[in-house]
Amino acid sequence: MFEAVAKAPKVSRSEFDARETELHAALLECQRKVRESDFSVLILVSGVEGAGKGEVVQALHRWFDPRGLETHAFWDESDEERLRPRFWRFWRALPPRGRIGVLFGSWYTEPVVKRALKSTGSKAFDRELERIRHFEDTLVDDGTLIIKLWFHLSRRDQEKRLTEDDKSIKKRKKSSVRHLSPLARRYSKHYDRFLKISQRAVRRTDVAHSPWHLVAASNRAHRDLSAGQIVLDRIRRRLEQQQPSSGRVTVSSPAMYKAGEQSVLATLPDDAVLDGDCYKRELLALQSTLGDLSWKAHRRGINTVAVFEGCDAAGKGGAIRRVTQSMDPRLYRVISIAAPTEEEAAQHYLWRFWRQLPRAGYHTIYDRSWYGRVLVERVEGFASDLEWQRAYFEINAFEEQLVETGTVVLKYWLNITPEEQLARFQEREKTPTKQHKITDEDWRNRERWSDYEAAVNDMVTHTSTEIAPWTLVAANDKRYARVEVVKRYVEGLKAALKHS
Amino acid sequence: MFEAVAKAPKVSRSEFDARETELHAALLECQRKVRESDFSVLILVSGVEGAGKGEVVQALHRWFDPRGLETHAFWDESDEERLRPRFWRFWRALPPRGRIGVLFGSWYTEPVVKRALKSTGSKAFDRELERIRHFEDTLVDDGTLIIKLWFHLSRRDQEKRLTEDDKSIKKRKKSSVRHLSPLARRYSKHYDRFLKISQRAVRRTDVAHSPWHLVAASNRAHRDLSAGQIVLDRIRRRLEQQQPSSGRVTVSSPAMYKAGEQSVLATLPDDAVLDGDCYKRELLALQSTLGDLSWKAHRRGINTVAVFEGCDAAGKGGAIRRVTQSMDPRLYRVISIAAPTEEEAAQHYLWRFWRQLPRAGYHTIYDRSWYGRVLVERVEGFASDLEWQRAYFEINAFEEQLVETGTVVLKYWLNITPEEQLARFQEREKTPTKQHKITDEDWRNRERWSDYEAAVNDMVTHTSTEIAPWTLVAANDKRYARVEVVKRYVEGLKAALKHS
Repeated sequence: MFEAVAKAPKVSRSEFDARETELHAALLECQRKVRESDFSVLILVSGVEGAGKGEVVQALHRWFDPRGLETHAFWDESDEERLRPRFWRFWRALPPRGRIGVLFGSWYTEPVVKRALKSTGSKAFDRELERIRHFEDTLVDDGTLIIKLWFHLSRRDQEKRLTEDDKSIKKRKKSSVRHLSPLARRYSKHYDRFLKISQRAVRRTDVAHSPWHLVAASNRAHRDLSAGQIVLDRIRRRLEQQQPSSGRVTVSSPAMYKAGEQSVLATLPDDAVLDGDCYKRELLALQSTLGDLSWKAHRRGINTVAVFEGCDAAGKGGAIRRVTQSMDPRLYRVISIAAPTEEEAAQHYLWRFWRQLPRAGYHTIYDRSWYGRVLVERVEGFASDLEWQRAYFEINAFEEQLVETGTVVLKYWLNITPEEQLARFQEREKTPTKQHKITDEDWRNRERWSDYEAAVNDMVTHTSTEIAPWTLVAANDKRYARVEVVKRYVEGLKAALKHS
Repeated sequence: MFEAVAKAPKVSRSEFDARETELHAALLECQRKVRESDFSVLILVSGVEGAGKGEVVQALHRWFDPRGLETHAFWDESDEERLRPRFWRFWRALPPRGRIGVLFGSWYTEPVVKRALKSTGSKAFDRELERIRHFEDTLVDDGTLIIKLWFHLSRRDQEKRLTEDDKSIKKRKKSSVRHLSPLARRYSKHYDRFLKISQRAVRRTDVAHSPWHLVAASNRAHRDLSAGQIVLDRIRRRLEQQQPSSGRVTVSSPAMYKAGEQSVLATLPDDAVLDGDCYKRELLALQSTLGDLSWKAHRRGINTVAVFEGCDAAGKGGAIRRVTQSMDPRLYRVISIAAPTEEEAAQHYLWRFWRQLPRAGYHTIYDRSWYGRVLVERVEGFASDLEWQRAYFEINAFEEQLVETGTVVLKYWLNITPEEQLARFQEREKTPTKQHKITDEDWRNRERWSDYEAAVNDMVTHTSTEIAPWTLVAANDKRYARVEVVKRYVEGLKAALKHS
């Protein structure tokens, strides 16, 4: 398929100038409209080594207003990047709504290079491509416009470029001496192999909402104009049409919980209790073990993401403190999730959580989490049916990535009965140090108990995966719940240490 | 001075409980008020190894509402941190206005450890302490409340703690097994030396607006209650009083430019021009050199921060493009500075620029910069007299840190005459691809020409330091200006490569 674009027609200087001026004005106009829109634009600049991807990036810089344009080059990884899931660096670079991001290199680079150099097998490669497809689905569902450009050169043209480059370095005559990295030269020796692997990547990720655009790169003027025209057309079309969707989930599926059905929480005893002495003894022993294990995990570079969910007054804060008490404060961060900031609101809802992921060896503990999407946002109508139903897939994929990079994922649902909640609310209102914890909103949420019950049931059903199951905790008795939480934390770390 | 706090009285369990409840309620109340205020609170937890700093952090977690509280531990540096100035990681961790940050370890740790282990001399140590004082001045001037806690243990008590710790590890009986790092054990062997160096650090940075609070740590209950009480008192006092100031600059000094005086820009020729052929030839040659140098600098880990300032239509964007054209897009980022985002506005005005600093080997190019503080913010009255005058010191200190860590700092002022600006405005209004560059605001700014002239004069006078001088560029002729800019960029990199 690449052969079709191997040869590019020549473009005269005057033709180039005329077309560039036109393109420039049109792109600026589009950018202005994007700024007022609710979506972001991602332009992926990929292709054969020597095709002049850098020059294309330069051209985009020339045409777009630099305010509202961000360029990210994915090249050498920093250790902050290396110590987190592979997609962390890409999430980090996503432009907010209203802005345009140019990505020089992207999530395709590493899998293609690794496969071409045979450091991964074809199965792993295909799985990686599927993950990419999923990632792009996720962005598109959030409104992002993804424009994927692939610049192609025939083997002969590539050789010509490399020779040109060598000469220009020697002569120091040309303005833009392109220093191809030594790696690029190494890759060029495997031209056929790279081409084959790239073709597979392109074919497998050439989806309707984010098709690949193949551009012949043998003539520079034609290459730049083509790229600009494609970008222009895609943005224009996106501005005209309704927000597209990946079409992954329809509203009717998957099956949801209906009032009156057996609740997944029904198995939890309402009356699990622990007396004071027993509590102290068990808790201290568990905390001591947890303290040890957290150091061991730190030394082995195992990181942990723990999520605490539960209705208001379920005892999330108290349970979290019982976990952290035994850990060195340098090893963990507790993140309390409240309404998103302006920067967070301008991004995909998972963005803020990616942002906080711990490095290898550390813990991030979320007091409320991404599950807000399928709990409060669903019940309060902040997310549409399509959005919260899709979220089950997105969340499972997110947690899968965490687990695959060696992260221990622990998810707790602390469950209390409405009667217990009422008693706790009343106690909070009476106690000075607890008054800040109770607001009118909490009372309002209480009225929606059955809606939340359905939401929790669906959440547990759809996101209790084999790799990241929910831990349901009977929490009417605080002591029982806290011991249970620490115990499961210990188990989680032990299992991870055993397998690492 | 530490001896005075060596021994702490005992506190009975019941007394502790009663006082803790009181403290807890009062701290929550204070935190609520801080949330509505326009300042942030920074609590530094420092002191002798084994004093139980981690336990104090835990106590603060117990007392404050976790929403609005952030804890940062400064421990092992990531390479993203290592490849930037030392203070980068601390700027990164500053809480926004309305929030409380707990720092476990701080900017004191590294200088004290290095000096105690004799890897730095006493002069370098004192200079570092001065820098710290300056940094704290900067934060306090921005409204931040800094509470510095130092926890002290006598040598005997420290030994006791370490032995206890060993035992508890063996017995696994206590809930909070404190795993002192091997480093801590190593430091404890140099108790006297650490104490002496710490005393010097504390004395030299014990200033009126941010005094040190010494706390005896031999009794745990007393230690925690004392720390809580100090934090409470300081926040209460800050809430009652006017924003304090470091007192570094008074409004009357330094001497400012007066209308009619000789302008620093008067030395620039109005009629410097370059004809087309000459321009092309010179530019291409310079760009070719710059392309080479940027790769050399990359390999040597030299990073560059370039600042472009100039009035509207001075040609900043065009000049920046002439620089970047010759560079690999992976090596640089261009940051266009517009109005701050919500997150940025909740921080010190320098915070957003710290955030963008390049790693070793890379370039960050700012289209407008921190100099906005002494230009537009001054002229428009967004910053008070005190604020913009203080900014000269803050900016010089900021750039000094960049230069000291090996960063090449380049600052360009592109100068055009009012007549030339008028001509360019008129041309912009006529040209479709340039219309987005001209707004009503630009016309309004033009009316303030003489105010800007004074601001530019003062800026150049006060911030053209030996290590980071301004490059004033006659920019009425775009070609002349662009060649000049690239030429100076080349010179800057050459000089840095020579000295590295």
